Amino acid sequence: MTAGASSPRVLVWNEGVHEEIDPGVAARYPRGIHGTIAEALGRLIPGAEVGTATLAEPEHGLTEEALAQTDVLLWWGHIAHDRVDDEIVERVKRHVLGGMGLVVLHSAHFSKIFISLMGTSCALQWRDEGERELVWCVAPEHPIARGIPFPLVIDEQETYAEHFDIPAPDELVFISSFSGGEVFRSGVTYTRGRGRIFYFSPGDQAYPVYDHPDVQRVLANGVEWATPLSREREPIVVLNPPRDWFEKPRG
Amino acid sequence: MTAGASSPRVLVWNEGVHEEIDPGVAARYPRGIHGTIAEALGRLIPGAEVGTATLAEPEHGLTEEALAQTDVLLWWGHIAHDRVDDEIVERVKRHVLGGMGLVVLHSAHFSKIFISLMGTSCALQWRDEGERELVWCVAPEHPIARGIPFPLVIDEQETYAEHFDIPAPDELVFISSFSGGEVFRSGVTYTRGRGRIFYFSPGDQAYPVYDHPDVQRVLANGVEWATPLSREREPIVVLNPPRDWFEKPRG
Amino acid sequence: MTAGASSPRVLVWNEGVHEEIDPGVAARYPRGIHGTIAEALGRLIPGAEVGTATLAEPEHGLTEEALAQTDVLLWWGHIAHDRVDDEIVERVKRHVLGGMGLVVLHSAHFSKIFISLMGTSCALQWRDEGERELVWCVAPEHPIARGIPFPLVIDEQETYAEHFDIPAPDELVFISSFSGGEVFRSGVTYTRGRGRIFYFSPGDQAYPVYDHPDVQRVLANGVEWATPLSREREPIVVLNPPRDWFEKPRG
Amino acid sequence: MTAGASSPRVLVWNEGVHEEIDPGVAARYPRGIHGTIAEALGRLIPGAEVGTATLAEPEHGLTEEALAQTDVLLWWGHIAHDRVDDEIVERVKRHVLGGMGLVVLHSAHFSKIFISLMGTSCALQWRDEGERELVWCVAPEHPIARGIPFPLVIDEQETYAEHFDIPAPDELVFISSFSGGEVFRSGVTYTRGRGRIFYFSPGDQAYPVYDHPDVQRVLANGVEWATPLSREREPIVVLNPPRDWFEKPRG
Repeated sequence: MTAGASSPRVLVWNEGVHEEIDPGVAARYPRGIHGTIAEALGRLIPGAEVGTATLAEPEHGLTEEALAQTDVLLWWGHIAHDRVDDEIVERVKRHVLGGMGLVVLHSAHFSKIFISLMGTSCALQWRDEGERELVWCVAPEHPIARGIPFPLVIDEQETYAEHFDIPAPDELVFISSFSGGEVFRSGVTYTRGRGRIFYFSPGDQAYPVYDHPDVQRVLANGVEWATPLSREREPIVVLNPPRDWFEKPRG
Repeated sequence: MTAGASSPRVLVWNEGVHEEIDPGVAARYPRGIHGTIAEALGRLIPGAEVGTATLAEPEHGLTEEALAQTDVLLWWGHIAHDRVDDEIVERVKRHVLGGMGLVVLHSAHFSKIFISLMGTSCALQWRDEGERELVWCVAPEHPIARGIPFPLVIDEQETYAEHFDIPAPDELVFISSFSGGEVFRSGVTYTRGRGRIFYFSPGDQAYPVYDHPDVQRVLANGVEWATPLSREREPIVVLNPPRDWFEKPRG
Repeated sequence: MTAGASSPRVLVWNEGVHEEIDPGVAARYPRGIHGTIAEALGRLIPGAEVGTATLAEPEHGLTEEALAQTDVLLWWGHIAHDRVDDEIVERVKRHVLGGMGLVVLHSAHFSKIFISLMGTSCALQWRDEGERELVWCVAPEHPIARGIPFPLVIDEQETYAEHFDIPAPDELVFISSFSGGEVFRSGVTYTRGRGRIFYFSPGDQAYPVYDHPDVQRVLANGVEWATPLSREREPIVVLNPPRDWFEKPRG
Repeated sequence: MTAGASSPRVLVWNEGVHEEIDPGVAARYPRGIHGTIAEALGRLIPGAEVGTATLAEPEHGLTEEALAQTDVLLWWGHIAHDRVDDEIVERVKRHVLGGMGLVVLHSAHFSKIFISLMGTSCALQWRDEGERELVWCVAPEHPIARGIPFPLVIDEQETYAEHFDIPAPDELVFISSFSGGEVFRSGVTYTRGRGRIFYFSPGDQAYPVYDHPDVQRVLANGVEWATPLSREREPIVVLNPPRDWFEKPRG
């Protein structure tokens, strides 16, 4: 059982640009990266309602109405971060702080929404040589690690490496190593406002990482972990309460 | 001894507006809030070079040159947050991520720079009735608590109360209680990029809190704690290193 | 989140001594403190199987068999900590490290099992004058806070105050203030090995705190949070794996 | 930061058994592992007074008097953990909780003192095949990382690997990877009571790791970081203060 309501309502967002311009990506992910992920989540999370949205849609598919109906948003982006409208980023952030879960994927470490929530540059080191990534869990009792092999092996993947300019995470769940010897904090959690955030780095447009059953399982676990306790958005706001406001009336 | 170089170069920034428009504040802090704090830091930190800057100065006194010569910046603001130029906020943030220490004071929880570094709303509850604040240390070995009485007693102060919408701090140093029974995480630390950040809530324009010797000592300790290891700004940046880049040349 | 299986198997342990020697306590908790808590948990947690055990039972009711059938153990003790057998403490600790959840109650901050898991003295300040305790949540999205009023008000209670000699908690959920102005980290979580630990201080033999519906709800939430992912005990053990042990056989 | 007094008084403890029974170790560390480390610390820490002690000495060289004169204790052990007297372990623990710094080295993850302070099993995975260890800093502004190359390269070393059964550290400073692909949290800090604890895994009797200049520098940084604010032991103890104990006498 997860933190939140059962049957989470999930929205998988993808910029969806590589699929349009790169035949290799289109062949690898014929339904788009978002389609592959959405299919997996629908299959793995009992009762989940899973939709998708992309950059090209009006308001990037992230209307106030769509977000209000979303328990957990997943975000994939890479070459079009700067095409995401600032106003929509603010809208998404408002929903996260009010309770919506957010799962940030791979190159979305550089998305406006992640940088804005972290407060750091989110820079990292990278190399694209198809190295083997070993994903080691260092929090074996964490629900995001449930059912994940130790290690999770990805035969070919882009290398992400430290320094990764993020705040010290609330929880460090996974550390990856790569064939070249670099390491990376590849699975980290944060709470910001009332929203739970999970960043998971494995996943790329150039490798079939999102077809990997263990990666799919991590994402499903992440969605369940990030599901809020309530479907209401309850942002923390400024109040000016009188003294003894919490006293019950006596009489 | 502190983390950083000895003889830190300190810049105390204050919007400086209350002092101009409110005779009570001007009488309480005849040199301005910044002047009172700067005097205390100069007296308490051996070898410190302490300057001040305010909103009214060109570029708010926060030029590239000024920041490049600053090890730790203190920030006080309240009624003029929105008059701080966004570009200068970005400049300050760049310096913090590159290593400059930042001490955020009282109502500056709502400054653009703090909100930007935290990623949350930084909202809180407040009441201005001159309640007694008791500041309790919960990390007695922390250098910021060195020499501070337990509890630190402030006879009259504005009440700040939870919920305080901040990320879970890296270190929780102080918790305050108020006469009305509310509590507040009043001393918290973060590292963002290479910059160390200390938020300390006691301090207000309407009470002589910055004349309190123990409050002055906390600020001096905070400055010493936040002083960077190096005077160079070394932001974490994206790199694309070749495999085995760290190998020594053999030969 | 509630990490674990539905229908947790819960064991409420109480030294059960005050009830035998103090008529006031016996009148206040006619089924014993353990009985009051067990009744509440059975009522509030769907499908829970709740049992009790006390010091006077053979092996304190904490046989290997009993523990192997327990998902979450609650522990209440006060005046008989030193009568708990060291061997049984080691047994309980082994089960916690292997995955059993542990909810530590009030004066059990000084139990052998809690001290052993924390590694600190677990000392605190106290005063028994029936002060009002206000329990403030500082992690509003934490599942242990679900449905709890802000603040949770306890009209009369023993005062517990800082310094509380515990490790910095993994998660700080509740901070209490008391009429006298002291504060206390009253709800904290830890993971040790695979076991999840929740310490909650409200609750006393001299006040009817365990009859308080909100306190009961916190305990139920704590039990759900501490429930392990698996009913198997899986302690982390030393291994000496050969190189490439994780490679799949090829061919 | 380095919290404490200048000129720390340092005691390097080593079981000193390998040096007696293994000519290879005796040749590698002719003054003993403790002697090599002590020489390095004396050279690298300005004003440090560095002594050594071993298992074979009366009370293992850890008398009440010796500990009372120690700011930071380093601990190396491997094959003789069970020969360390329990009473002396309790004594060391009392000093740590009262403020003495502790630097725990390599195979001392399994020392009685470390296990007792952590509350977990401290188990890990290992393999002794002389793999290359790369030590990556993930907290670049931490004073323990000052002046350390990124990565720190150890050409041949015993492999330590996750799962490492420790509490989530207060600060994660270093992550190591090994030729075989495993990762390990190799530099972690904790505060327990008033004592600062640094565990650093590189270092072994079978490899000349303690002759490595960068490893020596990490140990020196760790000693400076762990130095207490005060030379007085100030354990947190139980108190029963009257209401308003902190009020100043009026009149």
